[in-house]
Amino acid sequence: MIAGAAAAFRDELLSAGLLVATSVDGLYGRSATFEAIVDGVERLATAAGADHDATVVRFPPVIPRTVFERTDYLRSFPDLTGSIHTFRGDDKAHAELLRLLDAGEDWTAPLDPAEVVLCSAACHPLYPTCAGRLPDGGRVYDVYGYCFRHEPSLDPARMQAFRQREYVYLGDPDGAEAHRDEWVKRGVDLMSRLGLAVEAVVANDPFFGRVGRMLAANQREETLKYEIVTPIANDDRPTAIMSANCHRDHFGLPFGIETADGAVAHTACVGFGVERITLALLRAHGLEPARWPAEVRHGLWP
Amino acid sequence: MIAGAAAAFRDELLSAGLLVATSVDGLYGRSATFEAIVDGVERLATAAGADHDATVVRFPPVIPRTVFERTDYLRSFPDLTGSIHTFRGDDKAHAELLRLLDAGEDWTAPLDPAEVVLCSAACHPLYPTCAGRLPDGGRVYDVYGYCFRHEPSLDPARMQAFRQREYVYLGDPDGAEAHRDEWVKRGVDLMSRLGLAVEAVVANDPFFGRVGRMLAANQREETLKYEIVTPIANDDRPTAIMSANCHRDHFGLPFGIETADGAVAHTACVGFGVERITLALLRAHGLEPARWPAEVRHGLWP
Repeated sequence: MIAGAAAAFRDELLSAGLLVATSVDGLYGRSATFEAIVDGVERLATAAGADHDATVVRFPPVIPRTVFERTDYLRSFPDLTGSIHTFRGDDKAHAELLRLLDAGEDWTAPLDPAEVVLCSAACHPLYPTCAGRLPDGGRVYDVYGYCFRHEPSLDPARMQAFRQREYVYLGDPDGAEAHRDEWVKRGVDLMSRLGLAVEAVVANDPFFGRVGRMLAANQREETLKYEIVTPIANDDRPTAIMSANCHRDHFGLPFGIETADGAVAHTACVGFGVERITLALLRAHGLEPARWPAEVRHGLWP
Repeated sequence: MIAGAAAAFRDELLSAGLLVATSVDGLYGRSATFEAIVDGVERLATAAGADHDATVVRFPPVIPRTVFERTDYLRSFPDLTGSIHTFRGDDKAHAELLRLLDAGEDWTAPLDPAEVVLCSAACHPLYPTCAGRLPDGGRVYDVYGYCFRHEPSLDPARMQAFRQREYVYLGDPDGAEAHRDEWVKRGVDLMSRLGLAVEAVVANDPFFGRVGRMLAANQREETLKYEIVTPIANDDRPTAIMSANCHRDHFGLPFGIETADGAVAHTACVGFGVERITLALLRAHGLEPARWPAEVRHGLWP
């Protein structure tokens, strides 16, 4: 009864006004209280990574199509993709579009692909801006933004549009592994101090189809990516609220990023799923943040 | 030489690192400094509307397709639309998609329209959540979020993805007009106190095509919408940085929103274009906020 437990928690969140339902599953408005928790999580993430002296960049929720193509996301997660299409026609084509709309038919036939797609991961738009040589010792960026995954679900932790906060390291192979390992530790520590029962596990991403089963097996064998999981919708099947991932040269190669001595850069990132952390806190401590334990409140709102 | 002046200002912003270029015109990363100004504008908007005791809702950058259809946006601005398409096929269709991608062809042919489209205006996702009876005296909401307009441009004030902060009134016709009129005054006052040379003018939206020319003429005649404009890219042709709009029953009718006594609700909104206000401040006071006039700094970061 996994779906049942998730849907029941969703109903609680909607009744309490923390989320506002829309007609699409996995798409919600957020209340002031929900956003105050999100802001607290964001502040905590900033404090926890202050030693990086990271360069801050905030990207919008759409990214260049050519960037998306080079991330290879379409190979692994075509079903989660959001491609953006727009109208480039004349008055006559517009009349036809409106005729289709008014007839309740599919009005998207006259549309063309735009130069942009929805952002697949908060760090994807960063890589092309880092093309060329990195400084000695590599570099760390702090990125934050809305991502899209087309996975309509009644599980409130499976939103179609959600925010990721990331620290992205670009540099040599050892630095990339160290960044991931350090953030698995920091992440477990941070989330534990928020009173969440967490565990770090090897990631198990939902790669698509037949080829995806091999990619998923590879991912597990190579142990490049870890997730920090905690119960949200139900106790038996915990949900990832953070992840730490070493990409090796997966981005350095296609985006032409080089270390100071001219080698292909390796990259790694840690991601905070701020909506999921917010939901985990609401699940663990109840729907009224004013009544949460003092140490949790102090951690979020010092 | 309007385009030239806009492109020159864009180059200055990029050189100063305030915006980060992408391969798509009108799509930028934002620096920490840029975001600090955005946050200041947001804070100012919050303070200026505190008397509304508004209900806060934050919607994600995608909205239900059915909501978008009911806003009638496709009639007026089809060319600015962002429809989202995704992959629902099997392994075989996925192989074909990847073949198209690898061949450098259009890989979107196998995609289907998703249940969502890009958000066209920050207040659009709000209306369906207000279906039914409003309380006596109507209600004011505070919404904020990313919007999309497909208009690739070298003018930095013409971004494809940008944020709108809005106060939306829902109630009776007099209340809607009063909300608009009050916010034209408050907007001019607020922006003037930030040292911007502003003016309130009747709006002149870029309605599409032949029908659009009539809609634009109607809009000007009926004087339902005002814009607060100031020079950003060039002095001759000022840019709208805020707008205040009375929609009459344009949203109340299709979304089934009623006043306390059962009449179709009228609505009005004021929108703060936070990126445009940020750009106007950078243009007026220079690219280093630390050196801005003390009263402007105090207004943004009290």
